[in-house]
Amino acid sequence: MNKPSAPTPRTQVKRVAEYASYDTALLHAIVDSAYVCHIAFGDANGSHCIPTACWRIGDYLYIHGSNGSRMLKRLQEQECCVTITHVDGLVLARAAFNHSMNYRSAMIYGRFEAVDDAHKRVAMEAFMEHIVPGRQVEVRAGNDKEYNATTVMRIALAEAACKTRTGPPKDEDEDLGIAVWTGVLPLVTTRRAPVVEEGCTLAAPDYVKAWVG
Amino acid sequence: MNKPSAPTPRTQVKRVAEYASYDTALLHAIVDSAYVCHIAFGDANGSHCIPTACWRIGDYLYIHGSNGSRMLKRLQEQECCVTITHVDGLVLARAAFNHSMNYRSAMIYGRFEAVDDAHKRVAMEAFMEHIVPGRQVEVRAGNDKEYNATTVMRIALAEAACKTRTGPPKDEDEDLGIAVWTGVLPLVTTRRAPVVEEGCTLAAPDYVKAWVG
Repeated sequence: MNKPSAPTPRTQVKRVAEYASYDTALLHAIVDSAYVCHIAFGDANGSHCIPTACWRIGDYLYIHGSNGSRMLKRLQEQECCVTITHVDGLVLARAAFNHSMNYRSAMIYGRFEAVDDAHKRVAMEAFMEHIVPGRQVEVRAGNDKEYNATTVMRIALAEAACKTRTGPPKDEDEDLGIAVWTGVLPLVTTRRAPVVEEGCTLAAPDYVKAWVG
Repeated sequence: MNKPSAPTPRTQVKRVAEYASYDTALLHAIVDSAYVCHIAFGDANGSHCIPTACWRIGDYLYIHGSNGSRMLKRLQEQECCVTITHVDGLVLARAAFNHSMNYRSAMIYGRFEAVDDAHKRVAMEAFMEHIVPGRQVEVRAGNDKEYNATTVMRIALAEAACKTRTGPPKDEDEDLGIAVWTGVLPLVTTRRAPVVEEGCTLAAPDYVKAWVG
């Protein structure tokens, strides 16, 4: 089991440490709410920060890409940092410097490993199930050529830290008398009505009908 | 002027290069739509990917933090990569491997510079105006102690690349006969009703009333 039970030197949160958490359930929830993560790695040209689709199976975060991807090659040679951030709202305080944001973020450190051919298929099917549950059986599955051109990698959710902020603003006592509206302006990722491809006359399946509440 | 007019070796998009753009207006729009960016940098412990609030003034992207922030110290010593990603939808194709996402992303390479005291105040007020236009005059402005404890940094939007995908799925000709619903499931960041702080009995100002359409 890869449990982020205790901080390591890399995952010890120092800034606003009271927002830190090393709880596995929270980490999984933050990963599962994400369609993409950002990955930091380095090469001869310096540091790079690349967004890529991600999904979770058990205690691992998965990504995929072309065999030729620079990032996937470099990630097999070095440790990296994977970060997911959800912005949940703007926090309006009485003092300019006490304004903040509510958010949920996770940082994962470690090294990716490429998975073998058999697990690659299991992982890609889990990816589809994560993105659009129920669609797997309706589409043309990947063929050998497509799988052979694709690398699937995973990183253990073992060395990880979450940082979250929720709730109202926090002002200093001496500012509490300032007469200004205080509270939170919430932000949320929402679904909009499906856009059928031009020329597609098929009825929408249940998972498309259910996309918008 | 810092114009991302032509790709450099670091910003030359190689994967799905037809999605790349070096257009300044697009770059500005992607930055202006963001509340946070992710920054990749390195130190003795390896690569780090840190989310932080960002805003734009002219041809620069700004961030801020405590003087003691590890990231802000390291960013003054090295080049880094700043990335912003907006996920706009899930793209459902006929073949599993042709599924995709619609998105707008921007990557900026370069070195941050700390701004001087006078510009720090201008920049922080622009930040407030970006987050909640109109609120600046109602709150207690930052005092000398707060400003002295805060570092504001900016990076030129000069060496940058955008990558975007829009529109319907793209299937191979041989898959067009597969009878499955195709289209896009849109995702959008939306605003929810303001949550007033417990005990705040003041009327909401116009910019709070206008938060939700």
